[in-house]
Amino acid sequence: MGRWEPDAESRFRAAAIELFGEIGYEQTTVAAIAERAGLTSRTFFRYFSDKREVLFNGTKPLQEAMLEALSQAPAEASPLEAITAALLKAGDFFDDDRRPFARQRSKVIAANAELRERELMKLATLSAMLAQALRERGASEPGASLAAEVGIAVFRTAFEQWVGDGERCDYGGKVHESLEQLRMLWAN
Amino acid sequence: MGRWEPDAESRFRAAAIELFGEIGYEQTTVAAIAERAGLTSRTFFRYFSDKREVLFNGTKPLQEAMLEALSQAPAEASPLEAITAALLKAGDFFDDDRRPFARQRSKVIAANAELRERELMKLATLSAMLAQALRERGASEPGASLAAEVGIAVFRTAFEQWVGDGERCDYGGKVHESLEQLRMLWAN
Repeated sequence: MGRWEPDAESRFRAAAIELFGEIGYEQTTVAAIAERAGLTSRTFFRYFSDKREVLFNGTKPLQEAMLEALSQAPAEASPLEAITAALLKAGDFFDDDRRPFARQRSKVIAANAELRERELMKLATLSAMLAQALRERGASEPGASLAAEVGIAVFRTAFEQWVGDGERCDYGGKVHESLEQLRMLWAN
Repeated sequence: MGRWEPDAESRFRAAAIELFGEIGYEQTTVAAIAERAGLTSRTFFRYFSDKREVLFNGTKPLQEAMLEALSQAPAEASPLEAITAALLKAGDFFDDDRRPFARQRSKVIAANAELRERELMKLATLSAMLAQALRERGASEPGASLAAEVGIAVFRTAFEQWVGDGERCDYGGKVHESLEQLRMLWAN
């Protein structure tokens, strides 16, 4: 498998996610990932510090893109508008090409308590970063942290629908739908 | 210490939280907790499966009380009203007598990555339980999960203010303030 893959990193990623699904995350070794990818373990460690990083090394670019979008929102944008800009920017990472990997990744994480905790820590860190960025724009507490938490709730909801088993799905559309659902909580 | 404590469980709890603060969570042994409490390790294990349970054995009664309050909200209550009933019910656990323990507990958890992960898992579980209870009242997805996540954000915010270093603080009042802050996100 993977000969058509353009580069080693994506070959490792494809091999790892296959093996996590076939034999389980805990049972998968770096040696097995390398063998499946037709590469060596030594090369694996040039790209990933361990097998867990195959699932989480997309976190940092995603966080940076979201924070940059938030900081570039117009000065007059409300906290919710600035958060929305960050949420929509994440859609750059969630196109149809990446959906099979993301879907399999979600299944692997759901099946492993340690990975679920890591995912929760990742989202808690992102929430704290978004709150900090809102404070830097002049928002005060606890409003900044609440707006950031709302953003994370919307992010999770839209992301889960995007990776869900149904038809093709537009992440950005799900962000808007989730925000509308939240607005409706206060509407009656 | 602790001779005035009315029962063994609260003596262990007070001894443990003192030691966690003095020498750190990881360095504290059950034997040291028992010695500080003037009791035996054997007695400790009648109340707690391990030292971590000193920090987390209040979770289940809190969850149960919140879920019961949600289920007892009037049938015509909106999802937000039902969640608010659950949030306010948690205030039964957050009175001035419990605040010193809760405050020290928060500091211990903040200083230890494993405990932070456990706390996040606890809140994620509570969120899933609240969403399930909303669905049983007829709410649909993703609205139920979003309302539950909003509830957890409010819970965290109000709780953090309640345990904060400032003056006396009414948890229920902070719940209402946080909900108002969220409503304002959509107000302009």
